[in-house]
Amino acid sequence: MKLSQSFVKTLRDAPKDETAKSAKFLVRAGFVHKELAGVYTFLPLGLITLKKIENIIREEMNALGSPEIQMTALQNPAPWQATKRWESERMDIWFKTELSAGGELGLGPTHEEPGTAMMKDYIKSYKDLPASFYQFQTKFRNELRAKSGIMRTREFLMKDLYSFNVDQAAHDEFYHKVERAYKNVYDRVGLGDCTFETFASGGAFSKYSHEFQTILDVGEDTIYYNHDKSVVLNEEVLNDEILADLGVKRDELESCQAAEVGNIFSLGYKFSEPLDLSFSDKDGKKQLVYMGSYGIGVSRVMGVIAEKFADDKGLVWPETVAPFKYYLVAIGEKAGKLAAEWESKYSDLFLYDDRANRPGEKFADSELMGLPFRIVISDKTLDNDSLEQTNRKTGETKLLTIKDFLGILTHV
Amino acid sequence: MKLSQSFVKTLRDAPKDETAKSAKFLVRAGFVHKELAGVYTFLPLGLITLKKIENIIREEMNALGSPEIQMTALQNPAPWQATKRWESERMDIWFKTELSAGGELGLGPTHEEPGTAMMKDYIKSYKDLPASFYQFQTKFRNELRAKSGIMRTREFLMKDLYSFNVDQAAHDEFYHKVERAYKNVYDRVGLGDCTFETFASGGAFSKYSHEFQTILDVGEDTIYYNHDKSVVLNEEVLNDEILADLGVKRDELESCQAAEVGNIFSLGYKFSEPLDLSFSDKDGKKQLVYMGSYGIGVSRVMGVIAEKFADDKGLVWPETVAPFKYYLVAIGEKAGKLAAEWESKYSDLFLYDDRANRPGEKFADSELMGLPFRIVISDKTLDNDSLEQTNRKTGETKLLTIKDFLGILTHV
Repeated sequence: MKLSQSFVKTLRDAPKDETAKSAKFLVRAGFVHKELAGVYTFLPLGLITLKKIENIIREEMNALGSPEIQMTALQNPAPWQATKRWESERMDIWFKTELSAGGELGLGPTHEEPGTAMMKDYIKSYKDLPASFYQFQTKFRNELRAKSGIMRTREFLMKDLYSFNVDQAAHDEFYHKVERAYKNVYDRVGLGDCTFETFASGGAFSKYSHEFQTILDVGEDTIYYNHDKSVVLNEEVLNDEILADLGVKRDELESCQAAEVGNIFSLGYKFSEPLDLSFSDKDGKKQLVYMGSYGIGVSRVMGVIAEKFADDKGLVWPETVAPFKYYLVAIGEKAGKLAAEWESKYSDLFLYDDRANRPGEKFADSELMGLPFRIVISDKTLDNDSLEQTNRKTGETKLLTIKDFLGILTHV
Repeated sequence: MKLSQSFVKTLRDAPKDETAKSAKFLVRAGFVHKELAGVYTFLPLGLITLKKIENIIREEMNALGSPEIQMTALQNPAPWQATKRWESERMDIWFKTELSAGGELGLGPTHEEPGTAMMKDYIKSYKDLPASFYQFQTKFRNELRAKSGIMRTREFLMKDLYSFNVDQAAHDEFYHKVERAYKNVYDRVGLGDCTFETFASGGAFSKYSHEFQTILDVGEDTIYYNHDKSVVLNEEVLNDEILADLGVKRDELESCQAAEVGNIFSLGYKFSEPLDLSFSDKDGKKQLVYMGSYGIGVSRVMGVIAEKFADDKGLVWPETVAPFKYYLVAIGEKAGKLAAEWESKYSDLFLYDDRANRPGEKFADSELMGLPFRIVISDKTLDNDSLEQTNRKTGETKLLTIKDFLGILTHV
């Protein structure tokens, strides 16, 4: 992409009410635009980054054999009333609205209820199971405070997956597959080394749920872990019974701050019972469907990556999620022609800074935007058949021959 | 895709309150699930179809050089108050909601206001113009009635594009490019022959806007056209002044029903003036930005295609938007093995009906779902090195040799 194609300019200042480092840089670098507290527009570079994360998650969900669908924001109260989650006292993050034709509606904060209700049309017999589906869909949560940039917002993109099985044994098997798929996701987006599956509080049908927590200084959660991090747990389950159950002692545990980047839940019959989602088993007997739900906040993951890796100069994106691999700066006319050629040939790899700005401004913007490598070609380097490549993360600069660089490009 | 991978089953009956033919078939064929009147979940086949239409539109918008962004549903009242479109008396399709932290919000029915307000951060000088952006984003409109299936809904996917220019001349040039891009879109999704650009009512800054109207018996609009359809106009501009202006006489015009599938608007200063979106011109003088907006309802286009081409047996998709090109039925064990092989090799081309159902049921479902071609292989046809291909639209069936068919596949 040519930078001049985008209307976005980097900004010297972030909105005064942004406190998170990632939010300040994401706004200043032109990845997002703040509409109001906890509500952000994704600008061209931000949207490409978000879609890269989305596609990694999509590939892992497809590998589970789960089909993709897209449910709705507007929510019919009926299924939520059946599970007693319609009242704001029970679910305090509802946004509600009114139909002009009459009747109250909600904006979906999650989709267990409509998903369960919908499956009544498609699940009748044990032959219809197992079943699952996932979606990328915008959720709405009426958070009282929203001050962590895109890490906690009132409107955000979430991947949610729901599973439907004949019994707990079949459910458990799928649940473990999802655990592995989630680990693949965090590995692939660059958070693998610092993200742990934690024991979190369960519900009516299971002792635990699991969360995926990324170690992060400004994370909202405190997690506890033993020396080799083989047992990691959330604060809410730090009690004697659970510690005994997990075979760890309190004084063996250290703690740190972390940000939740995903959760997986064995729901059991929590939703299928009140909504009467059942099937006929092999003997023709009616049985309730055993359910699970599995969420990843896609825009939240993007925020956590931004927060985790940013340094004092700006954002630092892992290569797999960076909107482009190379930030291309050309100095001089001959270099400009070559840069335009490369950009047009490999438009997914290069962000070509074709603006009239001074090189120093371009270098500063390249550090603010955080693409993995900055490539500088000038009429002078070209005379020596070379270019200068700077690694954003390490700051290391090296000279490459044009031929070697083009060789790398064609192997990407 | 294997049909058994999806939890969806075709249904014998559509919801009783569905009156549109397309809606009945889309529900019965398992493309959408109705959540409430005017609110639909897109199921696996429906979502693939929607994304195919989205991608055609995306390619045409990218060809305009416009970058893609994604704005938000939640709307800050301020810019809407400035343009006097916040009050429900002025804009009667608002869904409104309340922040728990205090303050009213709206759900975006369109995005001129936030788009204009956002550009105040990025447009300062004539050097920043021209600018434009587009998005695919969910809109909310509190329609009093919603009974045309996905052709008119309360929550729908829209592509909206906004343009920003120094003056009307620069704007007009871009506007004509968008006109051509829109024509390409309708051609590519299969509506080209029956979609016309019409004169529609303008606004404060232009005599006309333009709509794209697809001729459709159950369309909500009446359009008027001369003998060679070189002049087509909406009912609201059917008056003596306009007729004289367009050089046509009333008694030369015929009329028909049509469905609007897109609109393009010269906004002039309608939004930039109240929101003070301005730039410094070459002489350092402050000038207002000249704007345009351009919309296509993506899910609406899908509904119009469904309505336009469906016959009494079910849906009939043009090849460019069909979720898969081939509906594959295998009879016998050897045929089943080959079908599974083809599906795994060309998973984007084949919907393989691997269910245990009887062939007759599969044939009926293939007609309901409306993929362009049904391919039947049986152990018997394979003995003759052949397969049976049926064109969904014409009903024509022919025998092809396996070799010829595979030759076609590899050229797709």
